Amino acid sequence: MNEIDFISRLTSNLATNESIIVGSGDDCAVLDLEIENEYCLFKTDSVVEGIHFEVETPPEKVGRKAVARALSDIAAMGGYPTHALITLGLPDEYDEDRVASIYDGAKAIATEYKLCIVGGETTQAGQLLLSVSLIGKVSSDCFITRIDSAKGDAIFVTGELGGSHTGKHLDFEPRLKEARWLAQEHEIHAMIDLSDGLATDLRHLLHTKLGAELFTTAIPISLAAKEQAKANPSGKTALLAALTDGEDYELLFTLPAKDAVQLNDAWKRKFPELSLKCIGKITDGPEITLRDEKGAHPLNVHGYDHLQQS
Amino acid sequence: MNEIDFISRLTSNLATNESIIVGSGDDCAVLDLEIENEYCLFKTDSVVEGIHFEVETPPEKVGRKAVARALSDIAAMGGYPTHALITLGLPDEYDEDRVASIYDGAKAIATEYKLCIVGGETTQAGQLLLSVSLIGKVSSDCFITRIDSAKGDAIFVTGELGGSHTGKHLDFEPRLKEARWLAQEHEIHAMIDLSDGLATDLRHLLHTKLGAELFTTAIPISLAAKEQAKANPSGKTALLAALTDGEDYELLFTLPAKDAVQLNDAWKRKFPELSLKCIGKITDGPEITLRDEKGAHPLNVHGYDHLQQS
Repeated sequence: MNEIDFISRLTSNLATNESIIVGSGDDCAVLDLEIENEYCLFKTDSVVEGIHFEVETPPEKVGRKAVARALSDIAAMGGYPTHALITLGLPDEYDEDRVASIYDGAKAIATEYKLCIVGGETTQAGQLLLSVSLIGKVSSDCFITRIDSAKGDAIFVTGELGGSHTGKHLDFEPRLKEARWLAQEHEIHAMIDLSDGLATDLRHLLHTKLGAELFTTAIPISLAAKEQAKANPSGKTALLAALTDGEDYELLFTLPAKDAVQLNDAWKRKFPELSLKCIGKITDGPEITLRDEKGAHPLNVHGYDHLQQS
Repeated sequence: MNEIDFISRLTSNLATNESIIVGSGDDCAVLDLEIENEYCLFKTDSVVEGIHFEVETPPEKVGRKAVARALSDIAAMGGYPTHALITLGLPDEYDEDRVASIYDGAKAIATEYKLCIVGGETTQAGQLLLSVSLIGKVSSDCFITRIDSAKGDAIFVTGELGGSHTGKHLDFEPRLKEARWLAQEHEIHAMIDLSDGLATDLRHLLHTKLGAELFTTAIPISLAAKEQAKANPSGKTALLAALTDGEDYELLFTLPAKDAVQLNDAWKRKFPELSLKCIGKITDGPEITLRDEKGAHPLNVHGYDHLQQS
């Protein structure tokens, strides 16, 4: 059973009430805590040594990444972060100075994004891990979920994709200000942050019945993905890397096709330093296809699945 | 460096702002999210296989314990829980049915205490662990911290102490309704839930300068602690177990001595099924002493320290 199916099994029949605006299954839970005009966002995300970082990874970057990943989920709802708790899972033997440097990296990015760390705990763990719990807020009339795509919507993605593991996964900027502007100024239908690769994460923006058509030439391929393909001609092509590599932490979103040109123009004025590409459209589906000069081909590749198990 | 000193090192110089009513170092963070008349409580707590539970522990009880521990921290602030996220750290090889049963245990106690689980994640971990993140609420004019004890205060404890590892640690009831009643109806100065043993946790209710005198004969010793001492005459005495065993999850609190008798009477009417004992008083300090018929002796025993490292 893969991660998504197993989580679905675990979280089936969860109790709910009127305070839960969005429960399990989106980038964050959205909660009505009776704050005027705002909802509370609630998220937990962890990084584990050997999977999300290595022993050799500069420790400040480990702490930075752990917090940045959770911030990226807050961004995907159109919200802003307020408070964090950090759980440190420590093996029997560990280097206190390294762990303190990891924590310093977390503190530094928290300060950068006006997020206050308000505690947490240390616990024993078989391998070093950081679990970050975040609270944020979002306007109650313009938060964005994964579920409201409609046939004909344009699909947009920020930045360039693929090859993140060569460096970007440690240094990416969570797209908080961009996402908040999108949520406040545009009629965004659905949004997600790209953590598992475009081919996998796009599926989360489609209802059971919807599909998508992507335009091959519009997929923004990162320099890292191109260099990686050049260095290893028998490996993934640069396009395949852009479609399937994980940890891009860019925004993928849909909006009515009629708004696409206006959005594109407004974006260029607002965020000239970050590319925004219209990469396709929502279709009747249910399949995702890739259109190039030779026609449309089913996209049957998969992104990174956190937890592989058959 | 022990757990507390190491956490102090990590959390030194954390940024703060006016939304943080209580930051790192109490049972929960207390946050002003601009909810009318209430503050938000924020807590994370984890249980790890081999430390907090064993391979043989009935899985439903593992999930129950993980949630109950965090609920006990919400209780210690005088609050009530609202929403939870659960992170499951899973080793390479695990039994899906067992993990699902663990999750069922978490769901069952959540329902019992009107707590909604709103998501979480699975991640890889060297050993099985559950990290529970909780949001709760507390009245902004009667939340209780660890820090407001004063000389002369009476020290009270609920329930009976010691020997929890023989069973209670899996079955305890977090003292939510009792703590909320205390917070709302009485002038409680400081409160904590007993997780690391009375001798250790009492220290958290004393400022640098304050101390405490405990009355040996007033310490409520559990049947489990007595039976354990009887079965192993060369081990801990029952009194020492009550003072130092961890995982009691009872409430320890202080209030003005003048209110002690009235509290005791009101408690007996309100919660006849749960014992409440006045076990001592706050002194000039800084030492903690234990008074018996032979006089006062310094209490220099220590409770359980989650993370032992020299």
